[in-house]
Amino acid sequence: MKKILIHTFIALIATTFLISCDNSNDTNNTDTSSKAQTVRWKMASTFPGNLNIIGEGGINFTKRLETVSGGNIKVKFFEPGALVPPLEIFDAVSSGAVDAGWSTAGYWAGKIPAVQFFSAVPFGPNASEFLAWYHEGGGKELWEEIYARHNLHPVQCEIISPEASGWFRKEITSIDDIKGLKMRFFGLGAKVMDKVGASTQLLAGGDIYPALELGTIDATEFAMPSIDLDLGFYQIAKHYYFPGWHQPASALELMVNLDKWNALSDSQRAQIEATCTESVVKSLAMAESRQPKALEELQAKGVTLHRWSDEILKTLEDAWLEVVKEEAAKDEDFAKVWASLSEFRKSYKTWKDLGFVD
Amino acid sequence: MKKILIHTFIALIATTFLISCDNSNDTNNTDTSSKAQTVRWKMASTFPGNLNIIGEGGINFTKRLETVSGGNIKVKFFEPGALVPPLEIFDAVSSGAVDAGWSTAGYWAGKIPAVQFFSAVPFGPNASEFLAWYHEGGGKELWEEIYARHNLHPVQCEIISPEASGWFRKEITSIDDIKGLKMRFFGLGAKVMDKVGASTQLLAGGDIYPALELGTIDATEFAMPSIDLDLGFYQIAKHYYFPGWHQPASALELMVNLDKWNALSDSQRAQIEATCTESVVKSLAMAESRQPKALEELQAKGVTLHRWSDEILKTLEDAWLEVVKEEAAKDEDFAKVWASLSEFRKSYKTWKDLGFVD
Repeated sequence: MKKILIHTFIALIATTFLISCDNSNDTNNTDTSSKAQTVRWKMASTFPGNLNIIGEGGINFTKRLETVSGGNIKVKFFEPGALVPPLEIFDAVSSGAVDAGWSTAGYWAGKIPAVQFFSAVPFGPNASEFLAWYHEGGGKELWEEIYARHNLHPVQCEIISPEASGWFRKEITSIDDIKGLKMRFFGLGAKVMDKVGASTQLLAGGDIYPALELGTIDATEFAMPSIDLDLGFYQIAKHYYFPGWHQPASALELMVNLDKWNALSDSQRAQIEATCTESVVKSLAMAESRQPKALEELQAKGVTLHRWSDEILKTLEDAWLEVVKEEAAKDEDFAKVWASLSEFRKSYKTWKDLGFVD
Repeated sequence: MKKILIHTFIALIATTFLISCDNSNDTNNTDTSSKAQTVRWKMASTFPGNLNIIGEGGINFTKRLETVSGGNIKVKFFEPGALVPPLEIFDAVSSGAVDAGWSTAGYWAGKIPAVQFFSAVPFGPNASEFLAWYHEGGGKELWEEIYARHNLHPVQCEIISPEASGWFRKEITSIDDIKGLKMRFFGLGAKVMDKVGASTQLLAGGDIYPALELGTIDATEFAMPSIDLDLGFYQIAKHYYFPGWHQPASALELMVNLDKWNALSDSQRAQIEATCTESVVKSLAMAESRQPKALEELQAKGVTLHRWSDEILKTLEDAWLEVVKEEAAKDEDFAKVWASLSEFRKSYKTWKDLGFVD
């Protein structure tokens, strides 16, 4: 069944022809009164709807929003590639060709390095601390300000548990074993892997399995056990590493074309935000509850689970601190967001050390 | 200013005369169509509206719900004692004398021991794991089932960070120093403190300060630093202990009279749930972000912060394991909820140990 799923998935990704979008404005609301007209949006997804948590969450969100809005906001989920290729959603929503996108900000690193902090931060905060910085430490406002310049409005719409660190064909006993490996890697962690000698590239979920199978890449990370299980990497690579130091918590985004966001009523905006924030809790709950079983299942399939040694984690963290310094020197927004996050974390540490049992 | 706040608070609590409630049904919706009539509810709170996070969250919730529902659901927040005494909300909402309550399930331990697990669990899960058990591990369904027998419907509507362990007049260097102390204590943790020799009682927030001042109690715990700061306990006790092993995460509840809940439309129920779950994220973000500054402020006021030794924590945990066994033997529901939670936690542990950086 997994094989079938993979093949369907690959087929979906392969169909990356662009269907021209309906740009007529008649479906979008411009009435800001409480008797707001029904909003009908097309939402392009980076993740297939049948991919657990990060895809299914997108579909759950559209259904729940319809109920919460009393049928006033109808968002249609489009599979990756059905409207635009999965990594071209940013441009499509920015231009208004598509109303909304279901993705994660780290995919837009090439355009705006700073937004990677709204996706996942190596050796960064866990879910609770991430939410605290985002809602109370200025993170949300910074993200909105940066996206507004691209005619976009972001809403944090999922948070998931720590990712796994990656799938390797051979056991990795030292940093030297990573040197020269061609690896699929996401976000800021990719630059850390490059710094310690790997050669990374970013592939969308559906492109990873064939690349791994063909040997175009030697290793990959994608998500957490229950998601990676769906993608079948265990069929090729048998060594699975933890913890995912590069993504201790990862956020997904609902991105909305800014003109369309501004045309909503206050109530409609609140309905979208509340439904997204509810989705943050539900995705975290799904992610946290599904990993134990997925780990068992992977072990039954012959996968060996490894935890990085403290020494390797220390080497990776040192490399990360170099990376973040270099990137901050190159880009003003990146430096600004990093300063906000690291100042928050510095203050939070006194509480973290004192307040928790473990 | 704090003094004034305390006195206003005490005055509020003192006015515990029962205002008879308007039981006319004309304000409650019985139309389940999408064109649902406006719902107007009175909500009695256990916490004063000016008490940070746990009180302000109740007021924020009512405002946000009005926006999310497009004015379709109007919930009026009533200060503790204005409709019913703070610890009598359960009965008032159950009977329908009051439509809804803003409280925490641990206060109803005397009636239903099992519901304490929906409030806070000694040596229990942190916020993420608690959410996972609640939404995906059966917690929510168990709570709804138990409350339904009392004509109530619960919605988890806040989660806060770990609490502090308590305020003591003198330094505590061993478990022996706790023996014989009269202490205000909440929830299941109270039974643990009794087991190690303290003599506990449960007082509502506003009754603690005068009891501490008069010497009716020697020590108290209430909440976390930013909340305890507002209540001024530092003026009397100078030794403040961490971590709050008895409440690693604590949930607040919106309780609704079940007949009134059932009379809502699907959309109205979804609006309440989504707004409550958004409030869970916002309260956690507020709680996590405000503690560092509160700790600094308390130190500036001459408070000494202590962390329990590993030995004392081990003694308390052992006592907790005895308590939970004894309570489970006495009450079927208690045993059932504990079995659900502990089974979930046992499975989760494999993931917790492997997946997280620290």
